[in-house]
Amino acid sequence: MKREDLLAALAAGFGLASRNARLMVAESCTGGLVSHWLTAIAGSSHWFDGGVVSYANAAKVGFLGVSEQTLARFGAVSEEVASEMADGLWHRHHQLMAAGLGHVPKELYGLAITGIAGPQGGQPGKPVGTVCFAWAGPFGVETVRQCFAGDRQAVQRQAAHFALAGLTARLARPNPAL
Amino acid sequence: MKREDLLAALAAGFGLASRNARLMVAESCTGGLVSHWLTAIAGSSHWFDGGVVSYANAAKVGFLGVSEQTLARFGAVSEEVASEMADGLWHRHHQLMAAGLGHVPKELYGLAITGIAGPQGGQPGKPVGTVCFAWAGPFGVETVRQCFAGDRQAVQRQAAHFALAGLTARLARPNPAL
Repeated sequence: MKREDLLAALAAGFGLASRNARLMVAESCTGGLVSHWLTAIAGSSHWFDGGVVSYANAAKVGFLGVSEQTLARFGAVSEEVASEMADGLWHRHHQLMAAGLGHVPKELYGLAITGIAGPQGGQPGKPVGTVCFAWAGPFGVETVRQCFAGDRQAVQRQAAHFALAGLTARLARPNPAL
Repeated sequence: MKREDLLAALAAGFGLASRNARLMVAESCTGGLVSHWLTAIAGSSHWFDGGVVSYANAAKVGFLGVSEQTLARFGAVSEEVASEMADGLWHRHHQLMAAGLGHVPKELYGLAITGIAGPQGGQPGKPVGTVCFAWAGPFGVETVRQCFAGDRQAVQRQAAHFALAGLTARLARPNPAL
């Protein structure tokens, strides 16, 4: 784990802690990398509750509630699926907290990543390196599509950094509902 | 990611592929490290379906079906909870495959890790470094408790290696039901 990875995770963690907020993460193409970076930090349990490595579509449907129709219509790597991943995760997180299974925070945040890390899996209009992101929070759900260059490891690392930077930026908004 | 981490993941991956088996992973104290190592391998989607980063108890209950009674009686770091994590994951995996949401494999395997990576969180009888493991497969569910030395990162890495080595050894059994 590199210094800049830890710094990206720390920035997100500080943002969550300063808002008294908690996070869950749903990772497909990054396969646990974001969660690994976050849990490398001692005390991350104060703001991180875990999440789902939704590597297969079965995990996206079964654990996150992504609809099979959305998967069939838009493909697993799409802003539509990323949005349903983040939204499903956020609602499950909220349900679990409301059921008294955790510390009830002021705000909940969710993060979802689905993409093509390569070297196989590129499709017409979705080359290797295409990654879709979604963030869920007081502002609702926001999605972005990016394309990263490099090999599998480079795509995964850039995707993890982009996801955390996007979270940190949203946590820094004066009014989180915006 | 170090060379020996990749080799440990590759050994497990080869074992799964050679049996036409598929894996899901539930990680608490390792926080996604095992999933990260497995998905660093191109083509890991042929035998890895993802899983749950059950960092908080809420995630253990909500995504894996661990009972609140077991958590209260034995604590989150116990062979009993590890066993319920692996068993719950294996049954959800089986349900999703049976529902037609994935490739139906000959065998399914599950892996669960729950421990105290430190530096905080040690308890009487459960010092920092205590990690409980469970493997689910054709043999049922098997658990082991270990105690590792070193700092947070060292405990997480040793736990990830122990979990993968235990899986690889079970995949190498001539009769997987034993």
